[in-house]
Amino acid sequence: MVKNLSMLTDFYEFTMANGFFESKMADKIACFDLFFRKVPDNGGFAIMAGLKQAIDYINDLHFSDEDIEYLKSKNIFSQEFLDYLKNFKFQCDVWAVPEGTPVFPKEPLVTVRGPIIQCILIETMLLLCINHQSLIATKANRIVRAAQDRAVLEFGARRAHGTDAAIYGARSAYIGGCAGTSCTLSDEEFSVPALGTMAHSWIQMFDSEYEAFCTYAKQYPNNCSLLVDTYNTIKSGVPNAIKCFDEVLSPMGYRPKSIRIDSGDITYLSKHARRMLDEAGYPDCKIIASNSLDEYIIRDVLLEGAKIDSFGVGERLITASSDAVFGGVYKLCAVMGDDGELIPKVKFSDNVGKITLPCFKRTWRLFDKQSGKAIADVITMHDERISEAEPYELFDPDHTWKRKTVTDFIVRKLSVPIFEKGKLIYNCPTAAEIRRYCKEQVETMWAEVQRFENPHKYYVDLSQKLWDEQHRLISEHIGR
Amino acid sequence: MVKNLSMLTDFYEFTMANGFFESKMADKIACFDLFFRKVPDNGGFAIMAGLKQAIDYINDLHFSDEDIEYLKSKNIFSQEFLDYLKNFKFQCDVWAVPEGTPVFPKEPLVTVRGPIIQCILIETMLLLCINHQSLIATKANRIVRAAQDRAVLEFGARRAHGTDAAIYGARSAYIGGCAGTSCTLSDEEFSVPALGTMAHSWIQMFDSEYEAFCTYAKQYPNNCSLLVDTYNTIKSGVPNAIKCFDEVLSPMGYRPKSIRIDSGDITYLSKHARRMLDEAGYPDCKIIASNSLDEYIIRDVLLEGAKIDSFGVGERLITASSDAVFGGVYKLCAVMGDDGELIPKVKFSDNVGKITLPCFKRTWRLFDKQSGKAIADVITMHDERISEAEPYELFDPDHTWKRKTVTDFIVRKLSVPIFEKGKLIYNCPTAAEIRRYCKEQVETMWAEVQRFENPHKYYVDLSQKLWDEQHRLISEHIGR
Repeated sequence: MVKNLSMLTDFYEFTMANGFFESKMADKIACFDLFFRKVPDNGGFAIMAGLKQAIDYINDLHFSDEDIEYLKSKNIFSQEFLDYLKNFKFQCDVWAVPEGTPVFPKEPLVTVRGPIIQCILIETMLLLCINHQSLIATKANRIVRAAQDRAVLEFGARRAHGTDAAIYGARSAYIGGCAGTSCTLSDEEFSVPALGTMAHSWIQMFDSEYEAFCTYAKQYPNNCSLLVDTYNTIKSGVPNAIKCFDEVLSPMGYRPKSIRIDSGDITYLSKHARRMLDEAGYPDCKIIASNSLDEYIIRDVLLEGAKIDSFGVGERLITASSDAVFGGVYKLCAVMGDDGELIPKVKFSDNVGKITLPCFKRTWRLFDKQSGKAIADVITMHDERISEAEPYELFDPDHTWKRKTVTDFIVRKLSVPIFEKGKLIYNCPTAAEIRRYCKEQVETMWAEVQRFENPHKYYVDLSQKLWDEQHRLISEHIGR
Repeated sequence: MVKNLSMLTDFYEFTMANGFFESKMADKIACFDLFFRKVPDNGGFAIMAGLKQAIDYINDLHFSDEDIEYLKSKNIFSQEFLDYLKNFKFQCDVWAVPEGTPVFPKEPLVTVRGPIIQCILIETMLLLCINHQSLIATKANRIVRAAQDRAVLEFGARRAHGTDAAIYGARSAYIGGCAGTSCTLSDEEFSVPALGTMAHSWIQMFDSEYEAFCTYAKQYPNNCSLLVDTYNTIKSGVPNAIKCFDEVLSPMGYRPKSIRIDSGDITYLSKHARRMLDEAGYPDCKIIASNSLDEYIIRDVLLEGAKIDSFGVGERLITASSDAVFGGVYKLCAVMGDDGELIPKVKFSDNVGKITLPCFKRTWRLFDKQSGKAIADVITMHDERISEAEPYELFDPDHTWKRKTVTDFIVRKLSVPIFEKGKLIYNCPTAAEIRRYCKEQVETMWAEVQRFENPHKYYVDLSQKLWDEQHRLISEHIGR
């Protein structure tokens, strides 16, 4: 329905771009970082996602004749600028943290270096993609951790904030660890396994619940999953399901797959249902629970001994309703001077936490060689190196007397090159590959960092050189 | 990037549809209602939105060869069913409440009547469109009411849950009363006015704030709006803006448009800035505030006497983060028997509030003839009539002894026909027309219903005939 996403851009990007163009500054090389300041739900870390859609967007970035006509009708853009847009060709360098990586506040998730005018034109969509999908991947990962080794299925399409929120939300939830989705299109597009059997309307269309069950069982004998809460789970749903397994499914030579409970107290109902199924000779019939679940309810019902094999999670996952904003920002960190040197830039603020990190940078993650667990991240100037061959001294950027020397570590760059002078040089892994990578990487996080409430604060430190540079700029600013 | 939205359908709709098809029930006529149970943020009413996208989706509903191939690869769908999808032609009747209408829990917002198999295939997208856009229109309307007669601008694209959330979110916010959006594409698509001037990066790209302001003023003298909080609003931003108005803008013969404050305490800063602008001879220069605003903060800063002429509202509007789920559901309410009569259907639940309303229905709104204010809504059987010529007795469906007879009223049907036997017979108004209609309709709501906290509960009553029918079915169910 929408033609192309190049116009999904805040209007001020166009007014600024035209302004830079007219001021002969369009080709000045700038450097921007995309980063966030707070983990949603006060969690210990976020999961990076959204890069694929951002890449697809940049690769397709072009302005149609219709777009140019529309902009022209505003009577504020110069013809030269409109011609520039008409012949737009992306020329920036882009680095990004791969999807599925656990990430922390302040770290550059995406870095863009190139003509200022191009850096700003991609701001809105870059933020939109990373903010949305990292939000959902982060939430999904929390829910999956709460479920321990049980499958979590994403069932939220009908409550998603629009079509993209459903389609890419399902992909992000899968990256974060969900086992599948209700959304058929996400399966077709990204091979996120789509699942689902019946709604209450199936049951209601028949004269009796038993007839509804039997009709379904005959139709899908090898995938017989029955929804048991339409009338009364314990008095009607489960007994009818067992009767159907006995009288229809077993004679056909099949075992039941599962029952689903979608209302009522799932701890109480699942324990009863489990006993009834076991006693009837169906200990292999699984129990799926759905109905406004999230990580807290899942953790609690499992602590109460609920007999649930898998969880269907809808609205609270697909909207991340407990904290529905991933606050990524995109800030200028350096501009190339006439001598070809990058001049660091800081945005000040009355709020100390909002002062930005200057300079063209790089992030490193240090892992303990013995345990394989992540020790700390260090943000350095782009040309600095951290060597495994030497001890490395970490220090807290806020309380610089807190220092720690690490040895015996493995170090890894967090970002990888994505575009080089506008050319895509990165192969996006499949959603399934990213999901596996995410699981591995989350396992490098200590349990105390994974805790839902009041997690241990993981170290994100600065190199001495970067710290010095930021403080030099702050002193300069105060001195002014 | 995504081909067509016909596959944005929960997988179980396909398994059920195929099941009905194979059971020779595909053509049974069913009747579904889309309704919600709770107003977000515990507000007094919601604003209906999302109908246009739902209509566009239904009108475009078709399954491509690729879609059919994908479904075939699942090895669970019959060839006859796949052929049916390939030749799919929508045949249902659809009624809906027009966008922009204040609506209440339990009322059918959309009613679909047609072959069961078609009713369920559109469920996911119908819910997604109405849930998402009603959520945003409702939130926007609250924020606009808080701002009293000041303009509210929607600035949320970068924090939206995907592209649709930005584009249709901007349209919904506009319907709810916002004056414009930052999202250029929403202007191009729906003529929602796109606005915006500069970000902090504009300021940072120049050697000084003053130079940045002057360059902008020269470029856009008749739309000179300056962002004043990059370094220090009171010590640097406002004085530099005034100097630029004096030295650049005035000599060119232009008046400044506005300044924007995006951080710090906006009550304190706006009062100071207002005094400085007034004293410098710019009482006509408006002050725009942005930075994590919502209806509560706007109400409070205005009570504190903040001098703000317009508000830019981003993440808390575009994600409705205080209550990010609009819980619309889609439930079977009747099925046609072999004799051509509609048989009412109820979904029971252990939770009394979740028992559905049976029957093919219609909703009426009664307005007081003197004041023009809405008195109550009444849900009746579809063939019942409410006449203005006679007194009408309202009663509370939960406490039936609470009765009230109204006279001297005007009555209006809440829904209008949208599709007739699959043919679109409704002309969608423009977003601007819907916005005007919404404003008029919200004015028919008493102030006590509009209150944010603990609003007066508006009456949504049932006709005696409908109440009797629901209670007959409940008794039957309990008797079983």
